[in-house]
Amino acid sequence: MSVKGLSINLATVRQQFGFAAAVDACLAQGITAISPWRDQVEAIGLSEAARIVKANSLQVTGHCRGGMFPANDKGGRDAAIDDSKRAIDEAAALGADCLVMVAGGLPAGSKDIAAARAMVADGLAAILPHARACHMPVAIEPLHPMYAGDRACVNTLEQALDLCDALGAGVGVAIDVYHTWWDPKIRPQIARAGRNKQILAHHICDWLVPTRDLLLDRGMMGDGVIDLKRFRGDIEDAGFHGPQEVEIFSSENWWKRPGAEVLATCIERFRTIC
Amino acid sequence: MSVKGLSINLATVRQQFGFAAAVDACLAQGITAISPWRDQVEAIGLSEAARIVKANSLQVTGHCRGGMFPANDKGGRDAAIDDSKRAIDEAAALGADCLVMVAGGLPAGSKDIAAARAMVADGLAAILPHARACHMPVAIEPLHPMYAGDRACVNTLEQALDLCDALGAGVGVAIDVYHTWWDPKIRPQIARAGRNKQILAHHICDWLVPTRDLLLDRGMMGDGVIDLKRFRGDIEDAGFHGPQEVEIFSSENWWKRPGAEVLATCIERFRTIC
Repeated sequence: MSVKGLSINLATVRQQFGFAAAVDACLAQGITAISPWRDQVEAIGLSEAARIVKANSLQVTGHCRGGMFPANDKGGRDAAIDDSKRAIDEAAALGADCLVMVAGGLPAGSKDIAAARAMVADGLAAILPHARACHMPVAIEPLHPMYAGDRACVNTLEQALDLCDALGAGVGVAIDVYHTWWDPKIRPQIARAGRNKQILAHHICDWLVPTRDLLLDRGMMGDGVIDLKRFRGDIEDAGFHGPQEVEIFSSENWWKRPGAEVLATCIERFRTIC
Repeated sequence: MSVKGLSINLATVRQQFGFAAAVDACLAQGITAISPWRDQVEAIGLSEAARIVKANSLQVTGHCRGGMFPANDKGGRDAAIDDSKRAIDEAAALGADCLVMVAGGLPAGSKDIAAARAMVADGLAAILPHARACHMPVAIEPLHPMYAGDRACVNTLEQALDLCDALGAGVGVAIDVYHTWWDPKIRPQIARAGRNKQILAHHICDWLVPTRDLLLDRGMMGDGVIDLKRFRGDIEDAGFHGPQEVEIFSSENWWKRPGAEVLATCIERFRTIC
């Protein structure tokens, strides 16, 4: 039985499965959409990963990830741009719906977040011609403000959409409930993104209270405080009807459980909570 | 020698000192502005705390704190309102510049952040007549989005100022760099707050990379990634020239050091970094 509308970001089971085993485990439970990370694809090889995707008619809801643009020197910034161009090629080879972009935080020693944000805008502008030529949409993912220092200085949907508007065609957003649920402006900004056809991906998990680790304590849908049904309603009202992609980093809980149990829980929660 | 322009939030040395000892330690190093927490005042008694403040001509840059308005039942919401009214009376007795308000997060079991925000607005409206009668300004402190679930559902300066505008006279904001440094709209919103004379307090510390705990790993000024001089410039350009108040919760570092060392470090960093 197919589980329509559900995608598994393979980071959710990264401690349990490599790419091929993850796909097998998903297919065994009827899940036909995935989103891999680059290291997972690299481990098996891009052509083999692409073969598995095609042979099983999988939907790839995103390829994770490009970006990380800010750097102290031009060499570092150019390297990030080149790396993101390679990520575009990989995403195209996999037939992904989009390449997910994580902006990057402050360069080492910097306290100038405005400068870092300018580097992100410059980096995106530099890769966009290649993305457009490859017909690969680029999805800026605003990350929670607690990552502004070290992972992403794009921290609200409004900010990401302002970037999109400045960059033009070929770029949109990945909306992750974990990063954006707290935002008092999230509903009007989702509607804005919908009007401009800029929603490229919808990531789900939950915000736990308490949260014990800034990076690796994301919750399973239903275990936290996010109103996932309302979020889904807002995103569907805005015109995006693609799969909801489960992305859970959980070093002390879900990464320690059997992968099949994690996937079964994702399905059960998706059906009842989301 | 007096340290002009520096205030110590007594949470910064709460593991080392009670109220009276904290004041003595501050005065010994020339610090003449403080901001106490209610439990610290309660431990020594309000009248004795007020006597110490007056006898030493201390500036009380804020009294911490009122708020925590959302609750599942009316009894709980009324209790929070009554508690905040008592906090107004205490702040007035201490001659504080303002009563700092922490909004409160989601009631237990709730996933409705919009409803929690409405409860905050209602709670503030309910206490404002008493605050105005006591001539005690109420300072809404937007807290970092990572506290939206359990501590405060007011998470950006823009949101706090929208609340202020709706509530009218007698209410403003406490701007803490820790909670707001990441915000792409912080500079225009500080300017907006200045135009409307709504800045009541300026709290400082630093954002550490990495941050190891969501609540108790704030950094000493200069040890993190916040551009404190620029922040101060923006706030002074907006017309606020009150003391910068150091508020550091640091269970594994500063709370374990001798209080006099912590205060000396605050002074040295204030002079060189802020």
